[in-house]
Amino acid sequence: MAKNLTKRSEDYSKWYNELVINADLAENSGVRGCMVIKPYGFSIWEKMQAELDRMFKETGHQNAYFPLFIPKSYFSKEASHVDGFAKECAVVTHYRLKDDGEGGVVVDPSAKLEEELIVRPTSETIIWDTYRKWIQSYRDLPLLVNQWANVVRWEMRTRLFLRTSEFLWQEGHTAHATKKEAIEETEQMVNVYADFVEEFMAVPVIKGFKTASERFAGAEETYCIEALMQDGKALQAGTSHFLGQNFAKAFDVKFTAKDGKQDYVWATSWGVSTRLMGALIMTHSDDNGLVLPPKLAPNQVVIVPIYRSEEQFDLVSDIANQVMKELRAEGIRVKFDHRDTHKPGWKFNEYELKGVPVRLAIGPRDVENGTLELARRDTLTKEIISRSEVIATVVQLMDEIQSNLYNKAANFRTENTTEVKSYDEFKEVLNSKGGFILAHWDGTSETEEKIKNETKATIRCIPLDAKEEPGSCMITGKPSNKKVLFAKAY
Amino acid sequence: MAKNLTKRSEDYSKWYNELVINADLAENSGVRGCMVIKPYGFSIWEKMQAELDRMFKETGHQNAYFPLFIPKSYFSKEASHVDGFAKECAVVTHYRLKDDGEGGVVVDPSAKLEEELIVRPTSETIIWDTYRKWIQSYRDLPLLVNQWANVVRWEMRTRLFLRTSEFLWQEGHTAHATKKEAIEETEQMVNVYADFVEEFMAVPVIKGFKTASERFAGAEETYCIEALMQDGKALQAGTSHFLGQNFAKAFDVKFTAKDGKQDYVWATSWGVSTRLMGALIMTHSDDNGLVLPPKLAPNQVVIVPIYRSEEQFDLVSDIANQVMKELRAEGIRVKFDHRDTHKPGWKFNEYELKGVPVRLAIGPRDVENGTLELARRDTLTKEIISRSEVIATVVQLMDEIQSNLYNKAANFRTENTTEVKSYDEFKEVLNSKGGFILAHWDGTSETEEKIKNETKATIRCIPLDAKEEPGSCMITGKPSNKKVLFAKAY
Repeated sequence: MAKNLTKRSEDYSKWYNELVINADLAENSGVRGCMVIKPYGFSIWEKMQAELDRMFKETGHQNAYFPLFIPKSYFSKEASHVDGFAKECAVVTHYRLKDDGEGGVVVDPSAKLEEELIVRPTSETIIWDTYRKWIQSYRDLPLLVNQWANVVRWEMRTRLFLRTSEFLWQEGHTAHATKKEAIEETEQMVNVYADFVEEFMAVPVIKGFKTASERFAGAEETYCIEALMQDGKALQAGTSHFLGQNFAKAFDVKFTAKDGKQDYVWATSWGVSTRLMGALIMTHSDDNGLVLPPKLAPNQVVIVPIYRSEEQFDLVSDIANQVMKELRAEGIRVKFDHRDTHKPGWKFNEYELKGVPVRLAIGPRDVENGTLELARRDTLTKEIISRSEVIATVVQLMDEIQSNLYNKAANFRTENTTEVKSYDEFKEVLNSKGGFILAHWDGTSETEEKIKNETKATIRCIPLDAKEEPGSCMITGKPSNKKVLFAKAY
Repeated sequence: MAKNLTKRSEDYSKWYNELVINADLAENSGVRGCMVIKPYGFSIWEKMQAELDRMFKETGHQNAYFPLFIPKSYFSKEASHVDGFAKECAVVTHYRLKDDGEGGVVVDPSAKLEEELIVRPTSETIIWDTYRKWIQSYRDLPLLVNQWANVVRWEMRTRLFLRTSEFLWQEGHTAHATKKEAIEETEQMVNVYADFVEEFMAVPVIKGFKTASERFAGAEETYCIEALMQDGKALQAGTSHFLGQNFAKAFDVKFTAKDGKQDYVWATSWGVSTRLMGALIMTHSDDNGLVLPPKLAPNQVVIVPIYRSEEQFDLVSDIANQVMKELRAEGIRVKFDHRDTHKPGWKFNEYELKGVPVRLAIGPRDVENGTLELARRDTLTKEIISRSEVIATVVQLMDEIQSNLYNKAANFRTENTTEVKSYDEFKEVLNSKGGFILAHWDGTSETEEKIKNETKATIRCIPLDAKEEPGSCMITGKPSNKKVLFAKAY
């Protein structure tokens, strides 16, 4: 049964959880911190995957698959990498169960692994151990590989899609002959992510660099995209790392250049995850449920028949089937929900909850009048339109709704981005309206840490397009040449 | 460098391993028993996935995702299931590493899990624990769900694609209101598998039932498809299980029927894995390397330019580019390999090794004569064809090669399927030519076991289309009403 959600304005966190569960996106499983992605939620993720995969291939990448398990010793080879991940690793220690003699099973102590295996939290170490065998000469470079996989990072406090112990993602791992080429790849991929998130998810993002303390463990530079959620908190939607020669050195991956000289290989890695589902939900949705941009909606249009008799149903269905056929010919994904197990009102609620962009309803009076009722999910408006106009109207609405969602989100972000001059002003804005705050910062980890400890706000990024301007740090007064982006974050 | 493989006739197993590695399909990783699927191998698997996924969706299934980990207690709930998998389970016991004080890391003993987690060897238990929440009424049925995932079954003796500790697969898990409907689903999916394997992989299969001792742990009936490899051994290419109400009872999944009565739900599960890659390789390949059916070839055609001067390269490239464009317009996947880092001879070997169905070569003399050289991978024949005929010829060859591979494999199977009357004859055939052997069997596990122990041959299946005929078991002489299919198997 479709049920009312807690209002977004009342309890944002509760609203989010109820929405995710009631719209059939995901739910908690019997395994602590691990989620089940339900068929409807997964069908949205599949659309995201398909577009991203196409974009990766268009930029020359190929998919491959590397082992789920990483020997513990690999993990220790890159010092800052192991520091970053050791505290959240699931560890396999045994490879067999045995009968406990009481109808249950216990771990067989005789089947203890000589070396423990880590369930991958990310795959740099196992992949760079493999690349050593694949790369000898400049002819083998660049190596442009991506993997779609599950990863595990043990989390104590979890939230569906946003922070779970297991999640799905893609991780690109590339190897290059020069530093310049690796940096270009890192930049290319953060741009691919930004294009995808803005164009398909209708979520505006700010591209930037992470500060040293927020960088990926093992990276020399981390590029990111940051989005603003409706509760004024930021969400990191994707990262692209320039890894320098750190992993090549740790795993001894050298190549012979054209001129015969040997050098370590330059690396990048980049990833987005099912966390994007959280960003999608929290950017557009409302008290009635999910709001989906047409480009990612599994059903872009749903048609609901209204009838009292079988005769009426036949009349209404005739037109519904014609409309469905014509819309499909235009490449639109349409569902005609003719189930007799649920009433129209229930269906209306259900498809609002599930974020279907356009709903068409048709009853006996519409048949007489040559009309249909069209409801837009983004604006929650309804209108009666004539049968002859419905196809063109819906086709055009797909673009209009996609743009409208993007523009709404962009306006929200503009309204909730504040430039501040002083730390007092910073704290005042943070506590009253939240959102993105631009301020001067002296570039030190100490100042960053102090702000974080005192306010819970972090530097989300140093925007790539930050304008050069003389200023002074809001805390220390030391000189600063650009404002950086602060927010409380997911 | 392209290198010569061990001959298939000399050492089949060595030939297979060298082919898999040298054709860039897969390799062993630093993790015992786990493989790396290399980009070229993965691109073939992706084609398989895409077709199977389409077929699953066309038969009404949706994808979802369930946790990688299964709590140990779930595992014990279905008695025969735990018996079947307990001995090959990777077990997570801890969720954190810590500094060992010497630059390495050790498992943190204070981060021991209260209940161990099993890395899924298959997902019936975690999925049926979830279905309890999803299914209340007949309205929630049928539930038709598939998952693409990695699974782990600890193996002591591994072979790339055929038997690895981690592998990729899909697992369908469906729930039904009636026994009849669940059996129909089980049959539908074994038919989907057979259609896919025959139509796309060009591998003929025999559909049948498994005997009780070869059934999936927890199933009431296992349907399978069995293929014959070139060394005369059988390979199980896919299975579809009717699970009865076993998992519904173990996880207490009941539904209310239309008439208000409560009953346990009926279940099926079905899967194919990266093992199909092994079947594909072993059915068609030869001493020169992989042979791919056009429908699954990442590149269906490769064009190799032959030239000595830049001027010649330009002339040759002009035509190659035109041919590529025209073939692509016909929907054919073409690669023009204009790399100057490798010689034509090297490229010829390389693409033979990688199984590209058609190779076109073009040199200055071809430009003068208006011709190209066309080489077929399946027959290893070459011919000179005129430029004006090349597009039509290649288009038609795609179908011809696909059929030819299927027919060759079907003929091989016919030649290597023997009906025998006595156990002596059975053993004689098994040791001389191998292959599939059809013989009468008394239907008991004891006889099956005796044959297995004495000859290493197993009952691959009781063919669905086995003809009813009076006979007597070749071992015990007891009555039998149909012949069953024996072979040594992978």
